[in-house]
Amino acid sequence: MTYSMVELIGRKRDGESLTPDELAWIITQYTADALPDYQLSAFLMAVLFRGMSRVELAAWTEAMLHSGDVLDLSTVGKAKIDKHSTGGVGDKISIPLAPIVAACGVAVPMMSGRGLGHTGGTLDKLESIPGFSVDIDPDVFAGQLEDIGMVMVGQTESLVPADRRIYALRDATGTVPSVPLISSSIMSKKLAEDLDGLLLDVKVGSGAFMKTTADATELATTMVDIGASHDTPVTAILTNMDQPLGEAVGNANEIQESVAVLRGEGPDDVTELTIRFASEMLMLAGESDLLSAQARVEKALDSGTAFETMVRLTEAQGGDPSYIEHPERLEIAPYEHVIEAPHDGWVSSCDAFAIGTAGVRLGAGRARKDDMVDPGVGFSIKAKIGTTVTKGEPLAVVSYRDRGKLDSALATARDAWSISEVPTTPPDLILATLR
Amino acid sequence: MTYSMVELIGRKRDGESLTPDELAWIITQYTADALPDYQLSAFLMAVLFRGMSRVELAAWTEAMLHSGDVLDLSTVGKAKIDKHSTGGVGDKISIPLAPIVAACGVAVPMMSGRGLGHTGGTLDKLESIPGFSVDIDPDVFAGQLEDIGMVMVGQTESLVPADRRIYALRDATGTVPSVPLISSSIMSKKLAEDLDGLLLDVKVGSGAFMKTTADATELATTMVDIGASHDTPVTAILTNMDQPLGEAVGNANEIQESVAVLRGEGPDDVTELTIRFASEMLMLAGESDLLSAQARVEKALDSGTAFETMVRLTEAQGGDPSYIEHPERLEIAPYEHVIEAPHDGWVSSCDAFAIGTAGVRLGAGRARKDDMVDPGVGFSIKAKIGTTVTKGEPLAVVSYRDRGKLDSALATARDAWSISEVPTTPPDLILATLR
Repeated sequence: MTYSMVELIGRKRDGESLTPDELAWIITQYTADALPDYQLSAFLMAVLFRGMSRVELAAWTEAMLHSGDVLDLSTVGKAKIDKHSTGGVGDKISIPLAPIVAACGVAVPMMSGRGLGHTGGTLDKLESIPGFSVDIDPDVFAGQLEDIGMVMVGQTESLVPADRRIYALRDATGTVPSVPLISSSIMSKKLAEDLDGLLLDVKVGSGAFMKTTADATELATTMVDIGASHDTPVTAILTNMDQPLGEAVGNANEIQESVAVLRGEGPDDVTELTIRFASEMLMLAGESDLLSAQARVEKALDSGTAFETMVRLTEAQGGDPSYIEHPERLEIAPYEHVIEAPHDGWVSSCDAFAIGTAGVRLGAGRARKDDMVDPGVGFSIKAKIGTTVTKGEPLAVVSYRDRGKLDSALATARDAWSISEVPTTPPDLILATLR
Repeated sequence: MTYSMVELIGRKRDGESLTPDELAWIITQYTADALPDYQLSAFLMAVLFRGMSRVELAAWTEAMLHSGDVLDLSTVGKAKIDKHSTGGVGDKISIPLAPIVAACGVAVPMMSGRGLGHTGGTLDKLESIPGFSVDIDPDVFAGQLEDIGMVMVGQTESLVPADRRIYALRDATGTVPSVPLISSSIMSKKLAEDLDGLLLDVKVGSGAFMKTTADATELATTMVDIGASHDTPVTAILTNMDQPLGEAVGNANEIQESVAVLRGEGPDDVTELTIRFASEMLMLAGESDLLSAQARVEKALDSGTAFETMVRLTEAQGGDPSYIEHPERLEIAPYEHVIEAPHDGWVSSCDAFAIGTAGVRLGAGRARKDDMVDPGVGFSIKAKIGTTVTKGEPLAVVSYRDRGKLDSALATARDAWSISEVPTTPPDLILATLR
């Protein structure tokens, strides 16, 4: 069937719905270079203003998902559950989370991304483990899932090529901030992993893409709906991202913190989210209630099987497991600078966006896609919202390699903290759960 | 100054205003091939949804207007007033109008278009006069304006090149129906004619682009505002286009009807609009009130000077003036078909869109830009809204050359008329005047 793209743009512009066939045709034609960029960009802008119905979005996502290869994990005799975060600062949750869930007998075929802008990326953090490779042979993918219960890799080029092309066009045409376009981009990639269930961590706050709970709820609901249309159960948890997660913001230091969580020695917030997310993933894999799921998670942590799974994963993906056994050996930049509290008081803000941006300036992240990441630089946050500080006490310790980059980072980082003269309370970490 | 187009798109998308410099930069870059189509089309779609402020639209129009050559008519020692119609069916008003105004001592540098879709074009109608050329040497333009008081030509390629390129992109990207984009397209071309005033005929109804008075008022107000920003007085008149204007719909037959108007023998509606428009143009040229303007117009008609001006114009542009003296000699297609009233009653609709579309099928207009026009085919409308008809009486006489085209035209034309059993009244011809 052939359609007139001008007519399809016009109908979307006027608020009418397109049929699944029409939407699939657009994706197919664009992926086949048979639709000019200027027509798709006008269409995407019309979608940004008019939205997509549930039926439209399901068809659009399905067409993207089938624009390239789709994983076939039918030989894996376990439930396959993944987790995706919309991105935050200090968000290393995936790294301790996946080995816990894998240790509980669930397969985690985790495909992650790299850091861009103020948010870090799981792949960059993993690569601070010497030898660790995030590109594994597709042939061993299913075997490793069966054997160790997890893989932690980058997305292959052959999966969802439509998303890469459409995302590049959106990036150049001001059509990024659209809930249907964001959610179809995320969901097409995750559903191409042949999952039995998906946990979404939708971040809300200054360091997140979604600044308000209302916006985050809309995005979360939309993605849960897409999952339902694809017969894949999705749980979405809205979590706070006004301040960084945990103490470590960087790469090697985030691996250290991740290992600490696996040893039961992690910061409270990272540990709380990790246990909750692992429990939710076990629920998606069939566990009947949250309490029994949590008991299994705590057993995997206490018994050391989760830690052991992380060691085995590192080994399987070419990394040196001694850095998991002794994470203090990971290379951290040689110089330290202490950001001190300017006066006594209660911390009322510890702005995730400012700290994330300072991290990029320090070299821990990327301003542009081809920037190199320095695994050893970063922040250790000492004072988070709700804590008291006295004048001169450290708010954070910065590990840096280059004085100029430090100065540039400090120009932003110093504004991250506000110290109040009245007591403050830490924000709720988990804001809502949508199933 | 260099801007980031992604940022400009994003600001327009979010409802912010762009500065005149930013808008001019977009036009300049696009005209210089330095801005990709996919960015401009996304921007145009954002404009379609967000609109443009008066200041933005003035800057956008000004930048388009200066994207190429601008006429310099400073040597012409008369007021220069043009008229533009948004397009209708049977709308030949420009043809009798311009010679009347010219005969009153005002210069009319009229640049017109060709027919496309269901609406006819002044250039096509003029070319049904044997020898008449709508491409005149730019060097004689000012001289002919001084001498005869008018030119009737097509737009030259060198005027407002940005409009041609942007219009082609809009046509392919569903971004045509936007009031700021329509009005800047029209006004940039008209203001490039170095005018002292402009009369706009904004058509409203089934045969017009604007279907409602509210939409037409918005377009008219916007164009009057653009004129004011350019210090060029603009009068906009909203006129009814639910049924064709006059009796003739075609090309040669519309020239015959135009000459009849100049001889005081035209149909009431065409004559009424022509006299009103001519009077308004004299007002724009400095006449103090409508009554004295109208007296001058009637004198130009009654004395034969308007008719004489049409004869001189035809001669000056290579046409055979004997066809103006004896318009019955113009070639009309050899066969006639009568559309008869199916029963007695009052005509309640005589749908301009249906008749215009039937005209295209007959060969009088263009479905596509490169179609040829047959000057001799067309309709002579015998029954308009409000008149009584008896069964078998002619509703219209069709002049045709090809039986197949007639059948195709009749399939549409027959539905144009509705005959009511209760009396009907003709619609008001002039709906509003905006200055």
